[in-house]
Amino acid sequence: MAISNPILIADRWQASTGDATFQAYNPNTGEALPDLFPISTWQDCERILDAAASAFEQLRLLDPLSIAKFFELYADSLEQHREELAALAHLETALPLQPRLRDVELPRTYQQLRQAAKAVREGSWRLPTIDTQLNIRSEYASLGPVVTIGPNNFPFAFNGAAGGDFAAAIAAGNPVIIKAHPSHPATTQRLTQLALAASQTAELPEGTIQLIYRLPKADGLKLVSDHRVAATGFTGGRESGIALKQACDVAGKLIYLEMSSINPVVMLPGEIRDRATELTAEFCTSCLMGAGQFCTNPGLVLVIDAPESRAFIGAIAEHLKQAPAGPLLSASGLKSLASSVASLITNGANCLTGGKIATEYPGFRFENTLLSISGNQFLQAPRTYQTEMFGAASLMVIAENLDELVTVLKSLEGNLTGTIYASKTGSDDDAFSAVAGALRTRVGRLIQNKMPTGVAVSPAMNHGGPYPSTGHPGFTAVGIPAAIRRFAALHCYDQVDDKRLPTSLRNKNPNDLMWRSIDGIWTQQDVKATST
Amino acid sequence: MAISNPILIADRWQASTGDATFQAYNPNTGEALPDLFPISTWQDCERILDAAASAFEQLRLLDPLSIAKFFELYADSLEQHREELAALAHLETALPLQPRLRDVELPRTYQQLRQAAKAVREGSWRLPTIDTQLNIRSEYASLGPVVTIGPNNFPFAFNGAAGGDFAAAIAAGNPVIIKAHPSHPATTQRLTQLALAASQTAELPEGTIQLIYRLPKADGLKLVSDHRVAATGFTGGRESGIALKQACDVAGKLIYLEMSSINPVVMLPGEIRDRATELTAEFCTSCLMGAGQFCTNPGLVLVIDAPESRAFIGAIAEHLKQAPAGPLLSASGLKSLASSVASLITNGANCLTGGKIATEYPGFRFENTLLSISGNQFLQAPRTYQTEMFGAASLMVIAENLDELVTVLKSLEGNLTGTIYASKTGSDDDAFSAVAGALRTRVGRLIQNKMPTGVAVSPAMNHGGPYPSTGHPGFTAVGIPAAIRRFAALHCYDQVDDKRLPTSLRNKNPNDLMWRSIDGIWTQQDVKATST
Repeated sequence: MAISNPILIADRWQASTGDATFQAYNPNTGEALPDLFPISTWQDCERILDAAASAFEQLRLLDPLSIAKFFELYADSLEQHREELAALAHLETALPLQPRLRDVELPRTYQQLRQAAKAVREGSWRLPTIDTQLNIRSEYASLGPVVTIGPNNFPFAFNGAAGGDFAAAIAAGNPVIIKAHPSHPATTQRLTQLALAASQTAELPEGTIQLIYRLPKADGLKLVSDHRVAATGFTGGRESGIALKQACDVAGKLIYLEMSSINPVVMLPGEIRDRATELTAEFCTSCLMGAGQFCTNPGLVLVIDAPESRAFIGAIAEHLKQAPAGPLLSASGLKSLASSVASLITNGANCLTGGKIATEYPGFRFENTLLSISGNQFLQAPRTYQTEMFGAASLMVIAENLDELVTVLKSLEGNLTGTIYASKTGSDDDAFSAVAGALRTRVGRLIQNKMPTGVAVSPAMNHGGPYPSTGHPGFTAVGIPAAIRRFAALHCYDQVDDKRLPTSLRNKNPNDLMWRSIDGIWTQQDVKATST
Repeated sequence: MAISNPILIADRWQASTGDATFQAYNPNTGEALPDLFPISTWQDCERILDAAASAFEQLRLLDPLSIAKFFELYADSLEQHREELAALAHLETALPLQPRLRDVELPRTYQQLRQAAKAVREGSWRLPTIDTQLNIRSEYASLGPVVTIGPNNFPFAFNGAAGGDFAAAIAAGNPVIIKAHPSHPATTQRLTQLALAASQTAELPEGTIQLIYRLPKADGLKLVSDHRVAATGFTGGRESGIALKQACDVAGKLIYLEMSSINPVVMLPGEIRDRATELTAEFCTSCLMGAGQFCTNPGLVLVIDAPESRAFIGAIAEHLKQAPAGPLLSASGLKSLASSVASLITNGANCLTGGKIATEYPGFRFENTLLSISGNQFLQAPRTYQTEMFGAASLMVIAENLDELVTVLKSLEGNLTGTIYASKTGSDDDAFSAVAGALRTRVGRLIQNKMPTGVAVSPAMNHGGPYPSTGHPGFTAVGIPAAIRRFAALHCYDQVDDKRLPTSLRNKNPNDLMWRSIDGIWTQQDVKATST
């Protein structure tokens, strides 16, 4: 019998205490890959949790410059191993090797780590706030061990071992317990090997980075709610997210969720008249990207009924029909997509193209799918018609008029993004206001004349939104420094002597770069000598 | 039969649809006050929720200056009605008329409203963040209707109709549904009358401020989890807080809780040697203030065993014994305190003074109580010995040495505050580090040589802490502007035209006062003309 791959506990790669194993699949062929990975037991978790708790006690007192150094080393290492990593992830996910994995997602990932390094060096993410009159000072500081659970669709950028939650959790000064996504365990293992090497060179405490691959569901819930864990970052499907949330809620533990989103896109009449051809291309590119497996995939498109709108929808359907069906990430993803599409059709949506498993191809593929429904019918059962189709599948809602379109928008749950395409001529201006008014409170990011796929790593980004797209509308999963503060506690010091304060709150600005709010004024200066 | 007082729905005072009523009590005498107040039905809630949803749609588009104006008018009105309000609150709570209610708590309350006005005028609370290169912009913005549920112990400063949650929720642009504390309904009614008058003068939307007094428990849970509500601010006991949290969690609704806290105070040996007399006075003043009914009351005091420590404890016990028992806020508070104290004694704590209901006085009174226990015994059942005694009652933990004291601290749940008294001579310096290290991750506010009672309204304040003192360690219930952001959503704009942005995110700084982070630099300047 082949030996299963080791897990990482307290900086040592070692066999899991569990006997059960699993394999990943090549989505292009549908065949199992040879490597065996362990399904961990609670005994593995116990040891990991103890090591994480011990790492935290050291990490929170460590000079942040060591953490910055770690990020820089790890980013360089990812860049050096670019070919190898891209090939590995391609094998496990069937996402395009180039440009996607090699030239877009991996560079984005190491650039994000470099941003994290810069944020840690500067320290402004802490929002240090000083009241010199009362001598009260506060800042965000490390929280405790964080479990990072990444999704299947971004093997690098959202990987628990390299992505946004990983970067944010460690930047805040917390150890991470990585729960690999079982569809790309070898990629996650390799990332973790490189991360561990960087961690050891930067002399981060033992146990700062630990890895398990899979757990029985009950143990997963036990892990995120364990007293030694402070928070969890989860990106994935709604069902798993809600189950984890419930476990955390009962235990009083934090969890940041990025769950389902259908990302409504409104195409206003003037814009369809002006730019139907370009719009068709933009929409189809966005819809088909990564076989539609993006959390910001345009799953719901709204138009007002008109001959131009009908022609536009027809052109999209034709375009999607001509495009080859891309490989989905897993057999379960295929099953889930087929089930969502079937449910919408059964409930009355018209199937304009696609709608079935693409049996003519190997691997996990579903035909590119376009469904349509009238605004009136959508309003009969808005919950039903908001079913997420995770893949290259969208539902077009054809509203009778602007009022009906706005009413449909008001029936939507929380989403990550909301997009409005409006004519540059001004002919859509009134409609824009009405649509934006309805979308604004229902989405995290409001986008004008651009597809929602593509989430820039910007300090101004919000990759978040109202429930159930996430668990809290005040936090973003992407964007440094804001994403870091998710994994931080607010620490206040009242009358504490300067020498006993963290360096970030002392009178002297520790690096002359850190922005601090002193008596209501944001500054990089020291606290004035006349103050306490 | 006397007619019950009206509730406030959509700016109209009207009879509740419920028949049931309740009365408040004078805690000084234990007798019921004559006024009848209604116990509302779900029918009342339905109308209030519809009105709140409608108010939100208008409020979120309103010029914030109207909200600032409202706060200023309301603050002035509270100041003008100071005598009347203090007398009313004194009748219902028996808290000292002066200085407490008239000269401290009410001024603090209207000054906090004035701070909210200033924050709304300036707008920096939104943390506007602009990336000019990518033209992505984000800020915190209003969230939706907020239910404010205040505690019994601060009829002004934490009242759902005037306190921190009220100020924060409205400052962020949200309507409030006030659920009065049933121990001071007349005070809350009068505050709401004054708030309504200010709201109408400032032309805030109808339904911005609404009031009910009491609800059956099931309807309370239904209210906070209703789809028309966005968030709840709750200050009160742990049992109620947890029940509300569960209801909100399941519905994906936000709730900010400020629950129990025993506020550990460590008195280091050098400080006891240097200042035993002053320390005794400081501790007893803090412990007895408001009959000990403070969320930051010093409920757990830790010392290292020594003759000086024993003498110090003896002096405190004597002092508490001599002081009269203050009136508690309610019969249920008295019952709960008696039960907590009895439980600790049954479980082995020594009663040094007090420990019984003060039957020689009228009203709701409990003897000032000091219990003690060894560090070793505490560690046998740390959960049990952390039982909160809400009143003038503290548990002294006598540790054998510093190590044991630190171990006791590490067994504590999350608390709002942690205090260390250390000698100015330097003799406690090493011990300070060890104690601070253990306390830091377990409390929101770390205090040096000052009692925890007294929570300044400062931008640097953190009146929050790890679970179960609150529900999230990243938020503070006191301190403007941070407290405002609890009731806000992060709104991002991606490629949106300048004219379509909220004024706070346009190139032009709307008031030249607002601090915005533009490309990583905090500034009050406009976005440079060369940028997008």
